[in-house]
Amino acid sequence: MSQTKKSYRASELADLLAGELIGADLQVNRLCDLKEAQADCVVVLADTKTVAALKEIEAVLVLNRRLELPLSQVIVKDTRLAFAQLSQLFAEPIVLAEGIHPSAVIHETVKLAENVHIGPHVVIAEGVEIGAGTQIAANSFIGKKVKIGKDCTLFPNVSLYPEVELGDRVRLHAGVVVGSDGFGYARSPRGALKIQHMGRVIIEDDVELGTNTCVDRATLGATVIGARTKIDNLCQIGHNVKIGSDCLIAGTVAVAGSTTLGRGVILGGGAGVVDHVHIGDGAQVGARSLVTKSIPAGESWNGYPAEPYKKYVRKHYLLGKLEQIWQTIKEN
Amino acid sequence: MSQTKKSYRASELADLLAGELIGADLQVNRLCDLKEAQADCVVVLADTKTVAALKEIEAVLVLNRRLELPLSQVIVKDTRLAFAQLSQLFAEPIVLAEGIHPSAVIHETVKLAENVHIGPHVVIAEGVEIGAGTQIAANSFIGKKVKIGKDCTLFPNVSLYPEVELGDRVRLHAGVVVGSDGFGYARSPRGALKIQHMGRVIIEDDVELGTNTCVDRATLGATVIGARTKIDNLCQIGHNVKIGSDCLIAGTVAVAGSTTLGRGVILGGGAGVVDHVHIGDGAQVGARSLVTKSIPAGESWNGYPAEPYKKYVRKHYLLGKLEQIWQTIKEN
Amino acid sequence: MSQTKKSYRASELADLLAGELIGADLQVNRLCDLKEAQADCVVVLADTKTVAALKEIEAVLVLNRRLELPLSQVIVKDTRLAFAQLSQLFAEPIVLAEGIHPSAVIHETVKLAENVHIGPHVVIAEGVEIGAGTQIAANSFIGKKVKIGKDCTLFPNVSLYPEVELGDRVRLHAGVVVGSDGFGYARSPRGALKIQHMGRVIIEDDVELGTNTCVDRATLGATVIGARTKIDNLCQIGHNVKIGSDCLIAGTVAVAGSTTLGRGVILGGGAGVVDHVHIGDGAQVGARSLVTKSIPAGESWNGYPAEPYKKYVRKHYLLGKLEQIWQTIKEN
Repeated sequence: MSQTKKSYRASELADLLAGELIGADLQVNRLCDLKEAQADCVVVLADTKTVAALKEIEAVLVLNRRLELPLSQVIVKDTRLAFAQLSQLFAEPIVLAEGIHPSAVIHETVKLAENVHIGPHVVIAEGVEIGAGTQIAANSFIGKKVKIGKDCTLFPNVSLYPEVELGDRVRLHAGVVVGSDGFGYARSPRGALKIQHMGRVIIEDDVELGTNTCVDRATLGATVIGARTKIDNLCQIGHNVKIGSDCLIAGTVAVAGSTTLGRGVILGGGAGVVDHVHIGDGAQVGARSLVTKSIPAGESWNGYPAEPYKKYVRKHYLLGKLEQIWQTIKEN
Repeated sequence: MSQTKKSYRASELADLLAGELIGADLQVNRLCDLKEAQADCVVVLADTKTVAALKEIEAVLVLNRRLELPLSQVIVKDTRLAFAQLSQLFAEPIVLAEGIHPSAVIHETVKLAENVHIGPHVVIAEGVEIGAGTQIAANSFIGKKVKIGKDCTLFPNVSLYPEVELGDRVRLHAGVVVGSDGFGYARSPRGALKIQHMGRVIIEDDVELGTNTCVDRATLGATVIGARTKIDNLCQIGHNVKIGSDCLIAGTVAVAGSTTLGRGVILGGGAGVVDHVHIGDGAQVGARSLVTKSIPAGESWNGYPAEPYKKYVRKHYLLGKLEQIWQTIKEN
Repeated sequence: MSQTKKSYRASELADLLAGELIGADLQVNRLCDLKEAQADCVVVLADTKTVAALKEIEAVLVLNRRLELPLSQVIVKDTRLAFAQLSQLFAEPIVLAEGIHPSAVIHETVKLAENVHIGPHVVIAEGVEIGAGTQIAANSFIGKKVKIGKDCTLFPNVSLYPEVELGDRVRLHAGVVVGSDGFGYARSPRGALKIQHMGRVIIEDDVELGTNTCVDRATLGATVIGARTKIDNLCQIGHNVKIGSDCLIAGTVAVAGSTTLGRGVILGGGAGVVDHVHIGDGAQVGARSLVTKSIPAGESWNGYPAEPYKKYVRKHYLLGKLEQIWQTIKEN
């Protein structure tokens, strides 16, 4: 979103980023792209390959090595972290609602803590509890007995089924659905008999779910998304899945029912994980891989079906030799 | 969702499940997970590997073979079916709306049968007909001339485009969209010329569509989802697709335009099916497979692109021999 | 949607399609499927294999070669283009709202041009500008300072985050979300630190986005969808992606952050593209392929990971020889 008009000296930014200022202590009002950089900008450079183009730049640069140029430079260890810190500094706070909009339909039993903001046409059912500082944007639906913690942000058109629990500082982007039935049926003489889902969903503190992402409720017990885990857009998290803390799950990932992820697991974009397997702490899965068995902690897996990264690379090397193999076989 | 306070004797449950009661005829109030089992619970055990842990359990157990333990046990043939039956028994009925909420915007021409429930901020356009016992949750949109049968459940934020037809007992989860245009364009000198979609969508009785799933309307004629077919979250069903009855389609599946599925087809999670092919009755497709040609009835296919299961398994066996093949070739 | 009661002579249609009329100059009121064709229909035949079945048809046929049958025929070069043109002719205009519904919540600073239609329960935040002839369907949310051009169509339950810009004649189907944060975090001692997204999204003229498709805002700068590009349902377009004009992106595609597409690129259903690569003008990617590196203009790529089409085909040919290779190796 747009930036507030905040103003800092380059030396202040250097302190904040635990970096070292070299050159002029310029005034900075904005975080900018290199392309649009002007005199009041700070620009973070992930690499320093384009040094030549930088000679005339008037902005403060943040980089991880010193340039032999007469520019205002803040030298940091980790430019990505510096960028995140600066983005936090300059970003305008998100205001999705102010006060309780009169068109919101809020059941008389709902408990709202102080400083809760509810947008137009939001619907909040019986027995819901919402913590201080939380804002819920327009057209969202909060089902019966849902519990929402403090300082949460629900973007528009979010749907929470009954009894979902959100911790503090949870962010749910537009179109997110939490708590729908898992996909479970039993064969019966009259066709598929639906398994009613009586469990819950627990979303722990500081979790962020991307747009139109879906998290199913448990059959019994709870589907759990661990603290600080971030899930991108259009992901599907099945019933009874347990995801540990600090995981990163990229867009269009699907995790099938009852599968568990440890802490700090990374799933690349479009990865799929079948039901009832376990992915260990810190394991990583490549984009579009299909995980069909459990992955030990700390390992990197790739492929369809997924296998340890080294095996995956070797297999692709060998596939590149198929032509030579075939020609040899044909000649003999 | 949470359970109603219903109470049964173990012997009553045995009758209901067509099972045999062994041991004490305990009182049961809840369906529980093994982990949280207490004296008033019934617990279904899919397997009996964890017998040792069961010695002290006070709940009624449902299993498919008798344990040599002094426990209250109901022996059934199919524990999954028993679980589904018990979940139906103990689940609280879903109440998404009660009566017609005054904030709903309902066109004067809309025909509502008795006992229809419409939640807050629902919008129902001209000429819509809704059958008895149907409930439509908050913030849903029902387009012109849509027909909805009896006892349907539409969760929040559902969008039905004009002229969509739903049978009886259809369940559409939050964020479902039915009846949008198919993806069809013709090349023209001025760029892609849109093919207007003038067809319909017919969703037959007892169909369930998962959250944020999308079903496109037909170009001409109808896109059809057959009776009792269940489709999971985030699936894409293209224009003019015909899906037979009793199919099970897992999450994030995509079926492209004009493809047809017979009865009882199973598509694993994330499977894709190209346009204009046919999948025969009872065929099964593995997770994340890409179906690029028609599949005969009753066959199981897997892979990218999909092939009959035995060929798929053999190919993966042979891929495992690539190292040995390559070493042999190199030595000669 | 349903057709208006328009009436044309076959000769008028022939003029309109730049085709040649052979046979009777019948009256046409509808565009029909072959199956439902009646005397007042025009039917477009993509192929003429089913000639035998056509003997008794009373409708006007549009085809690309003359049949030796005494039927009313319009011969055209491109039947797909003819179908699109006829669909445009006979389709009823979409009316999602009429006037400004009183339940819409529109900030006092919003600028609406003439002939703007806003459906029930739409929410439009501060500083939004909406061009003439645009209609916004029920329960949609338009964030602060969004700019929407002329003659746009927003279907129900659309969410636009602040500062999104739409050109003219843009169509956003139900559940679309534009402008949410990209998926960007930096490692920090306290877990993942969110990168605030301060950039924008620009959707150019004549773009169409399918149901529940998501387009993320840029970190800095803009995510751009070029003019006349069409994106199908359930697609994910990452932050800072630039998509050129006249691209066709089929359902469930995901394009990761900072990747760029040239003009006229075609991505098959379910294709994935990793971050920071470039797909050249006119390149084509097969269904469910995973693009892991840049693709030169004009090339067709397929596979997991994707490679040039000829290499992909050759690899699959060689995989078909694995059995023979293995048997040969075993014998020696």
